[in-house]
Amino acid sequence: MTSDPDPSKTNVAPERPEYVVVIHGGAGTIRKDRMTEELEEKIRTALDAALLKGESVLKAGGSAMDAVSETIMILENSPYFNAGKGAVFTNAGTNELDASIMHGETLNAGAVGGVKTVKNPILAARAVLENSPHVMLSGEGADLFAKEQGLELVDQKYFYTEQRWKALQNILQKENVTTGDLLESPRADYKYGTVGCAVLDKDGNLVAGTSTGGMTNKRWGRIGDSPIIGAGTYANNKTCALSSTGHGEFFIRHAVAYNISARMEHGGADFQSAADAVINEELVKAGGSGGVIGVDHLGNVAMPFNTAGMYRGYLKSTGEKYIGMYKE
Amino acid sequence: MTSDPDPSKTNVAPERPEYVVVIHGGAGTIRKDRMTEELEEKIRTALDAALLKGESVLKAGGSAMDAVSETIMILENSPYFNAGKGAVFTNAGTNELDASIMHGETLNAGAVGGVKTVKNPILAARAVLENSPHVMLSGEGADLFAKEQGLELVDQKYFYTEQRWKALQNILQKENVTTGDLLESPRADYKYGTVGCAVLDKDGNLVAGTSTGGMTNKRWGRIGDSPIIGAGTYANNKTCALSSTGHGEFFIRHAVAYNISARMEHGGADFQSAADAVINEELVKAGGSGGVIGVDHLGNVAMPFNTAGMYRGYLKSTGEKYIGMYKE
Repeated sequence: MTSDPDPSKTNVAPERPEYVVVIHGGAGTIRKDRMTEELEEKIRTALDAALLKGESVLKAGGSAMDAVSETIMILENSPYFNAGKGAVFTNAGTNELDASIMHGETLNAGAVGGVKTVKNPILAARAVLENSPHVMLSGEGADLFAKEQGLELVDQKYFYTEQRWKALQNILQKENVTTGDLLESPRADYKYGTVGCAVLDKDGNLVAGTSTGGMTNKRWGRIGDSPIIGAGTYANNKTCALSSTGHGEFFIRHAVAYNISARMEHGGADFQSAADAVINEELVKAGGSGGVIGVDHLGNVAMPFNTAGMYRGYLKSTGEKYIGMYKE
Repeated sequence: MTSDPDPSKTNVAPERPEYVVVIHGGAGTIRKDRMTEELEEKIRTALDAALLKGESVLKAGGSAMDAVSETIMILENSPYFNAGKGAVFTNAGTNELDASIMHGETLNAGAVGGVKTVKNPILAARAVLENSPHVMLSGEGADLFAKEQGLELVDQKYFYTEQRWKALQNILQKENVTTGDLLESPRADYKYGTVGCAVLDKDGNLVAGTSTGGMTNKRWGRIGDSPIIGAGTYANNKTCALSSTGHGEFFIRHAVAYNISARMEHGGADFQSAADAVINEELVKAGGSGGVIGVDHLGNVAMPFNTAGMYRGYLKSTGEKYIGMYKE
């Protein structure tokens, strides 16, 4: 396994690799001087396990849809990311989870917002895509749909981690919560622990998915970009597959994932330039922090972010592999 | 007041009008041979009242944000459209309302999904934009936010109309409801009664908003395109302001509103060509029915739809005015 610097920056695929898996585990103030070696190792191990899961699915002839679902499940089941087990807490002390997935051949998509009982929200999003006429389900209705689909349900306490609970208590104490305080933007040291995956498979299909617990201390049924097709997730076999992580409100307003695809489809931009223009120019100008990971129809990988760091990695059928955390 | 044919088809503004108001009251199988003269007159009168409200706000020096909000309130308060009073019923016999609004100068946006007690959901969307750090709130949390904002709340029975209740009963009886039946697409004679408005004001600001009751018989907390920024609503002073109406799932997957703007911004298309390409080519190819209304930064109006009809209209400070219902 190679490490930083990121070889994808200069990588142009001469011919399409058989498969590519790209992941993220969130962006934010991820800096080496704030990280313990132990935590860094645990996160790196989890990212590696996720990439290897995606690869094993694809090597066995699985589809991009299978690879994205199973890779994201690994990250949801890990307590180190803000998705599934380890999700952040809402102002009410609950966990409310969002996820989405999109298939680049059919442009079919599925998303759930604010589910509370689904162990793996990415599977609920996939069930919406595959077994409903809808794209987006929300709240208790989405939980009910997941139950009807036979997905594994868990008690809210399954999602509990001490670290996330303390994070909520810290905010509640510091802010002496009033509506006015809640109106503030996330603090400068905010970490967006959303997880996501984009895959190119041997059939040339592109699929992307995203899963998150949203923002610590969120209220009012707030929905971020993760379950919004075109903002948090987008896939189109003509262009690319993308998953976002960051300050969701900006990612919605700038339609970040579709924006990158549109610059390729309608503006003729290449993948890396389009992704850089949105993350490092358009979003920076607007004050929106975060990043995206993705793969294009030729197998090129892009992973731009405008924060101090982003948990990220990719591997290709060519043997090329990378895991990174910090800015180079 | 002129009537069909639609002069906007060939209208290119030589210089920007002081203001423009464009509205829709939904698209679908709206055909003259199925319409009574009485109903046609009532709908035409409501559309006219909405346009005149927008104009009066703008003539008095009001902003595009004020004009969009007040115009949409007229349509929400009318029982003839599927928004506010007159909203369709969910499978559970409730009314769950979605709305969104976006400002083209700041790209700030607000949306609510699945509110049950807010008389005018467009005002809740505007409050999210103006008085929260978020873009999208959902479910009971969104109702609570609206209450905290001092918006007018109503009992669910306020939204009741006999026509919409019968429509639900018809579907429930015909389909002898099972999950399998619910998985079917909307029937071919479906009408999308969503309402929307786009405005250009004297300062060159573009604002768009959308409000809906969603689909009759919807379940599982289904959210359509109306509260999704980039799908149901989008505004950008560099390009255009748009509101969508149609089969929401397709409008989300094709990011319809932002898609049109992106073809202008990144592809160099003019407004009418971009709007036509998305509604009459991309969506038709995908099987997605509906339309959009909007105004661009030069004051040009576009109102393409791929259904039999769309309730629509616009007026300009130049005196130009149009209301239409059917395909020409």
